[in-house]
Amino acid sequence: MNFTQKVKSICIRQHSLLCVGLDTDIARIPEFLRRETDAIFEFNKAIIDATCSFAAAYKPNLAFYEALGPAGWQALERTVQYIPEGILKIADAKRGDIGNTAKLYAKAFFDRFDFDAVTINPYLGTDAVLPFLEREDKGGFVLCLTSNPGSKDFQYLTDGQQTLYERVLEKVHSWNDRRNCGLVVGATHPDELKAIRAAAPGLPILIPGIGAQAGDVEASVRFGTDENGELALFNSSRGIIYKSGGKDFAEVAATEARRLRDQINKIRMSI
Amino acid sequence: MNFTQKVKSICIRQHSLLCVGLDTDIARIPEFLRRETDAIFEFNKAIIDATCSFAAAYKPNLAFYEALGPAGWQALERTVQYIPEGILKIADAKRGDIGNTAKLYAKAFFDRFDFDAVTINPYLGTDAVLPFLEREDKGGFVLCLTSNPGSKDFQYLTDGQQTLYERVLEKVHSWNDRRNCGLVVGATHPDELKAIRAAAPGLPILIPGIGAQAGDVEASVRFGTDENGELALFNSSRGIIYKSGGKDFAEVAATEARRLRDQINKIRMSI
Repeated sequence: MNFTQKVKSICIRQHSLLCVGLDTDIARIPEFLRRETDAIFEFNKAIIDATCSFAAAYKPNLAFYEALGPAGWQALERTVQYIPEGILKIADAKRGDIGNTAKLYAKAFFDRFDFDAVTINPYLGTDAVLPFLEREDKGGFVLCLTSNPGSKDFQYLTDGQQTLYERVLEKVHSWNDRRNCGLVVGATHPDELKAIRAAAPGLPILIPGIGAQAGDVEASVRFGTDENGELALFNSSRGIIYKSGGKDFAEVAATEARRLRDQINKIRMSI
Repeated sequence: MNFTQKVKSICIRQHSLLCVGLDTDIARIPEFLRRETDAIFEFNKAIIDATCSFAAAYKPNLAFYEALGPAGWQALERTVQYIPEGILKIADAKRGDIGNTAKLYAKAFFDRFDFDAVTINPYLGTDAVLPFLEREDKGGFVLCLTSNPGSKDFQYLTDGQQTLYERVLEKVHSWNDRRNCGLVVGATHPDELKAIRAAAPGLPILIPGIGAQAGDVEASVRFGTDENGELALFNSSRGIIYKSGGKDFAEVAATEARRLRDQINKIRMSI
């Protein structure tokens, strides 16, 4: 099964397009948990236990783990192993490096950790991307139009015919022989998301920015899903995992994950 | 002292513009070393001992360490600690992520590891870059025009007035209030390097691609240094550290590092 089919079938089985971002920051997890030996993992474990019925994917942001050095990588390794079978594991790494280096990153994320997909920064071009796309069951989500304010600095540069992000989209088509390549498009750009979906009916799109970054859920579900209301993953990180800072953090995260899953499903059923 | 001054003074004291890339791959280090408990560190230690009289900077490429998981990070930590005072430590990380994430990467590289500088991918724009530039003594080298074949895919996109890499250069000027921001420009693009140096007389430029990637040393030294023959760092990784695969690997690396340092110095003295 290629990666695109995998995304589709997991979303159907989980009846969810929700991706829970595990941006786990030691400074933001509940006080009482920080005393634990592997506090980051304990936090993630509780979040996963509470939300796994509502999630199609988990997406640890690697910066949060790297910031802690070797202990952070151990927490990440345990977290990835703990994510139940049948839910996508996405390494939010935003890597992009020359060919021989990209190969090593692919090895790290797909072999050492058993991630299903990785986010890729396209600035360095084709040879930085292809090493992530060598196996049909492992995928790459290429940054196309990001959710942050700085997305305006370079991604809209245009030659009159095509913006940078549109050129990235065009290249993604050429990299997609194995049907394992997707896009990252921020929910903060609904009109562009609509145009991108129209130009890429068959690509999985990872859509961050609906939680703390205040992207429009209604518009991004309407515009980001394919003609069957599939092939999009909507990520919320801080909006779910830090919704409560108290003892009830996991319970509250579950309620929020369920609410968001249902909200997304309701919108896509109404299209 | 700001980062730009730091680069300058280290290069003057070391009488060298050479950066040794520590792209240390367990599969490529000499057979007899692989049996050591921390083979990666032992290899780096020998390379550093042998080359530190000839180097102005060391640049571990983080992919090579990440590929090994927690043990790789430990090897990286030990390596960075082992680099002598007075030589620059550059994390070749090519990171770029939204503001709150970039902050964590900055913390990882500058606090946890004591790196002097980090390489930054500009695709996400201003808010992905600024967190790396908050301290005047710590620097960021922003990818401008990279050395690999894929650099042609996006970096030359132009609006008729300005290519993407020229827009990156322009932005770097606006990010450089603390005089701690530089560029990465591949030695494989000598003409563009010349134009970039002319437009950025005061920026440190990290120039990869002169070793295994076959960039032109003569042209890149001539065009990449500033009016005083300073402010550029020329990186070779594989061309130095894997020059010999035998017991004499460190000795041969030293000979090659010295040769390259001298070659660079001879060219810049002749300008």
